[in-house]
Amino acid sequence: MAESDRIAVLGAGNWGTTLAYILSQRGYRIGLWEYREDLARDLAALRENRIYLPGVILPPEVDVTPSLGQALQKAAVCLFALPSQSLREACQQAAPFITPHQLVISCVKGLEHHTRLRMSQVIEEVLGRQKIRLAVLSGPNIAGEIARGMPATSVAAALDPNDALAVQRIFHSKNFRIYTSGDVVGVELGGALKNIIAIASGMVDGLGLGANTKGALITRGLAEIIRLGTALGANQETFYGLSGLGDLVTTCMSRQSRNWNVGYRLGQGERWDDIQRSLTMVAEGVPTAESALRLAEDEGIEMPISRAVYQIIFENKDPRQAMEELMTREAKPE
Amino acid sequence: MAESDRIAVLGAGNWGTTLAYILSQRGYRIGLWEYREDLARDLAALRENRIYLPGVILPPEVDVTPSLGQALQKAAVCLFALPSQSLREACQQAAPFITPHQLVISCVKGLEHHTRLRMSQVIEEVLGRQKIRLAVLSGPNIAGEIARGMPATSVAAALDPNDALAVQRIFHSKNFRIYTSGDVVGVELGGALKNIIAIASGMVDGLGLGANTKGALITRGLAEIIRLGTALGANQETFYGLSGLGDLVTTCMSRQSRNWNVGYRLGQGERWDDIQRSLTMVAEGVPTAESALRLAEDEGIEMPISRAVYQIIFENKDPRQAMEELMTREAKPE
Repeated sequence: MAESDRIAVLGAGNWGTTLAYILSQRGYRIGLWEYREDLARDLAALRENRIYLPGVILPPEVDVTPSLGQALQKAAVCLFALPSQSLREACQQAAPFITPHQLVISCVKGLEHHTRLRMSQVIEEVLGRQKIRLAVLSGPNIAGEIARGMPATSVAAALDPNDALAVQRIFHSKNFRIYTSGDVVGVELGGALKNIIAIASGMVDGLGLGANTKGALITRGLAEIIRLGTALGANQETFYGLSGLGDLVTTCMSRQSRNWNVGYRLGQGERWDDIQRSLTMVAEGVPTAESALRLAEDEGIEMPISRAVYQIIFENKDPRQAMEELMTREAKPE
Repeated sequence: MAESDRIAVLGAGNWGTTLAYILSQRGYRIGLWEYREDLARDLAALRENRIYLPGVILPPEVDVTPSLGQALQKAAVCLFALPSQSLREACQQAAPFITPHQLVISCVKGLEHHTRLRMSQVIEEVLGRQKIRLAVLSGPNIAGEIARGMPATSVAAALDPNDALAVQRIFHSKNFRIYTSGDVVGVELGGALKNIIAIASGMVDGLGLGANTKGALITRGLAEIIRLGTALGANQETFYGLSGLGDLVTTCMSRQSRNWNVGYRLGQGERWDDIQRSLTMVAEGVPTAESALRLAEDEGIEMPISRAVYQIIFENKDPRQAMEELMTREAKPE
């Protein structure tokens, strides 16, 4: 695509706004869709997303609109950057404006709650598998750092290598290096499942259990991600790359991670109900924990960390006791 | 072995002192060897290692001595917990007091500089391969956390499974969980090579490059550890476990890590010569970087992160430029 082409970014949260901003800097014209009319109007006028991305000023090339038709008009590319549980509805509403020539890119990390589908599966189900060019973008991508031009990497995955290369061409820059993959399942599951482990990591920090425990937890977290991921058809190697291990480590380390923060607060003794009320952004790891556990049950797979996170959030299990149980599972060969 | 048996801990640095302390808590009598007579005398009198492990009081069961003969007298187990470059000499001096019935355990993470040997290879070379029972202990083990009773895991590796199980029995407790492995090469190399990546991680933090960059660096760091490790005979899976990925993540995250700290200061603009003068403990990653690069050259393997660390330390390469070069290597499939 030519740089003069238009890109629709659906979702003006912290990731969508960041993507709109960095793509506008690369010379694209952006249609940024925000479904709440008042927020769209404010963002269009102020040029700053004070809730989700304060300090970043959107240039005139970013056209903020509450109209999907306007955002997608003449767009060569359609990026989804919404909370996972809002994707299906947005996709249904966007469907009339999406054409087979457009490249559709999911930038959402999660699993749909009641169906347990990956995000690209939801898009395929809504738009029709044969009718669209579809790719996903996932990696160690704390939005605020990328918006500030700090170096980062990510992975573009698609079944058709040309679509992955197209995503790479759109995003690749000096400070945002895009690698390609054919393993859509692995790249999406890495991005979705690491949020559960990030919650557990936050708990370790909130409980003051230290770096030794956190290193062990991340190691075992990756192992349980791989157990489920490979059972669902992903390539094991994908999880050792940037979209797996890389994203996992970044999210477990960064205090800017929403999921880490939820875990930290749980570790500090807050209850999920209270935390939830105070959140301005969705912590994807919470619904993902439930979906992942159901998938694991279907596959007959053990996911002890995900189970602990689920029990702490939804069954008021004590975080310290849960972490102690995780750390004191029977000694055996590694 | 009975808990009344005696264990010799050779080396009263922060790890040796920690091991002596936790083993004494498990009921063993400890001979703790410190080669500097004045330090041994102070430690014996004060019962606190104010330089390396302040705040931890050694009980009377820990007998601190500058005499190897005394430390090893009637010892069923001999632990080495010294800087890697001091191991050979200490081992040579200890050799007359080590018997074939003793279990020798290396707790040292490094490579001998001029020979590029792993620590257990040095011990074997000095003591004679056939004459000893030999195991290694390595994992995500920030000493200060373990001394304070915070939960941690580690891996005991030996060629003879009985020796690995013996190490497990000696150390395994509620808060220090020991797993066994037969891959001595992999466990030792994971522990040694991660220190190089920890220096690079510290640089990322010192340069303020953010969590996205750090996640990418750790991912690629593990990949280059695995390239060298498998070429040297290690099992790839070992590096995905606690002694590989686990130790790597812990060391790259913890501000208590000496190697991370060296990197951080380099990233902040200090020169190695100045940093070195101020260190009270050895940063193992520095000599290991050189040894690893030489081994990689022999094997025809690329280790770009280790090379960057080496060039920054020994050739005054600019850390920012080196990190930029690492992050902007050519885009390609992952």
